[in-house]
Amino acid sequence: MFAVTILGNNSAVPAFDRHPTCQVVTYDGVNYLVDCGEGTQIQLINYKVRRSRISHIFISHLHGDHYFGLAGLINTLSLLGHQQVLHVFAPAPLREIIELQLKIADTMLCYPLHIHHITGPATLLDTEKLTVKCFPTNHRIECFGFSFVEKKPSRRLNPEKAKEYEIPITFYERLKDGEDYIRKDGSIVKNEWVTGPADPGKRYAFCADTKYDESLIPHIEGFDMIYHETTYLDNMRDKAMSRFHSTSKQAAELAKKAGVKKLLIGHFSSKYDTLEEFEQEARDVFPNTELALEGVAYNV
Amino acid sequence: MFAVTILGNNSAVPAFDRHPTCQVVTYDGVNYLVDCGEGTQIQLINYKVRRSRISHIFISHLHGDHYFGLAGLINTLSLLGHQQVLHVFAPAPLREIIELQLKIADTMLCYPLHIHHITGPATLLDTEKLTVKCFPTNHRIECFGFSFVEKKPSRRLNPEKAKEYEIPITFYERLKDGEDYIRKDGSIVKNEWVTGPADPGKRYAFCADTKYDESLIPHIEGFDMIYHETTYLDNMRDKAMSRFHSTSKQAAELAKKAGVKKLLIGHFSSKYDTLEEFEQEARDVFPNTELALEGVAYNV
Repeated sequence: MFAVTILGNNSAVPAFDRHPTCQVVTYDGVNYLVDCGEGTQIQLINYKVRRSRISHIFISHLHGDHYFGLAGLINTLSLLGHQQVLHVFAPAPLREIIELQLKIADTMLCYPLHIHHITGPATLLDTEKLTVKCFPTNHRIECFGFSFVEKKPSRRLNPEKAKEYEIPITFYERLKDGEDYIRKDGSIVKNEWVTGPADPGKRYAFCADTKYDESLIPHIEGFDMIYHETTYLDNMRDKAMSRFHSTSKQAAELAKKAGVKKLLIGHFSSKYDTLEEFEQEARDVFPNTELALEGVAYNV
Repeated sequence: MFAVTILGNNSAVPAFDRHPTCQVVTYDGVNYLVDCGEGTQIQLINYKVRRSRISHIFISHLHGDHYFGLAGLINTLSLLGHQQVLHVFAPAPLREIIELQLKIADTMLCYPLHIHHITGPATLLDTEKLTVKCFPTNHRIECFGFSFVEKKPSRRLNPEKAKEYEIPITFYERLKDGEDYIRKDGSIVKNEWVTGPADPGKRYAFCADTKYDESLIPHIEGFDMIYHETTYLDNMRDKAMSRFHSTSKQAAELAKKAGVKKLLIGHFSSKYDTLEEFEQEARDVFPNTELALEGVAYNV
């Protein structure tokens, strides 16, 4: 599964049961947290996202609505006896804040916490199957988007063929990884007899807080899904510009220019009690737009 | 009105829809916030507590579950155009954290924020009608309780008498304040003809996080209501001691020894999915005990 679950879809001031920014990118059983606004640990409980499966947290920028939930989550994981390393990627000053908060509380975490500075475009994570990169966006303070690119997608299994060759179901994942099946008598079922070529790797990008900026396009071009902020409707384009935010129409225009397949929109201002107009405005320009709704998982 | 509304009644790890510590002491139309755990600004919305009426925030200690909601609330008040001075009283390192968070976010608040250090027993606020003091409790790090003492209680009005003398209802509050009523013809209705002596001022104390410690008694003796933490049930007394927390029975024992009228208990560990046993255990020792339930206002 490669999906994005929204935990917070509002801008800075929580309102109308909408929370500050947080989303969970789930890939191959691992939960990657993107931003961590206040209340994230409660939203994780509300939407039954397993905290123990969080290994990496990516913080786009250090406006409070994108990271004020981080210190609480870090503490809670320790109180719950978390064991694995937790990697946090964020602009540089974050480490000073977290270390200060731990020091004055006289807290020793029971797991290793590695806080990595991000300073410019970079590859942050490179596993066998997934690459996570960051790219700068255009916001009032230093801010980064994150791209999640499936690197080694699975080959497409033909289950009828696999059954015909009497390959046990427990071996199917290894078939998708490209392995041949060796029977007990030593004879070989060639992988290409039961699988087809893989679909291209899926790609998702979180474009953080940003004003409309076409310099983002090279980082998201042709992606299967992107999330782009839409703090305001387009009749407030000037205000959006002056605050380094985007309108719904602008998000849709960027999605169209970047040739992505699907657009998720969020980071709604607390001025708006309902969201239909955001959806409509974006769909007029880019039909395959969806509102990022809290608790909903969107497949990449 | 002199009441305490609970916004968070759980200990550090939020669970079972219980939140980290926060309560609102309402007196004479002003909301005094006591502790400000993560999610406080959302709880304020949930329970319709007017954020604009918060003028003073008292932070007992710098474990995250007592202050991680503060930075978000400070930011939100600014985004909402708050104008009045906001006073925050807390152990010294808080200012460094808040100032660092504002600096790296490049945030200029639109109202004056005064962060006051508390270092030992002191009078923090002394208005015409209310005195707020802090006193040290016995916790793992520097920690303070807060007492709210009504200073100039209202005289008891006899409404029949006031009616008899044809005093307009709009003047009743001034009668309670001890004023005589002067008729249009210049004749005087003496205050003591229509009011009786005031009840003694009401007193409430928040005892913060603490292990059982009788040295708190002089600060809370004979109070109308106290809040005392009960992280564990008494079968975990050793664990409570080692973590500088109290059990339900211990809270009740202290309430009894201090001769208070009513005990509120909270700061429940996330180990417990239900709270009946806390209530029962405390009531066995001190019958006038109530569970501090979120969203409920308790009259002092």
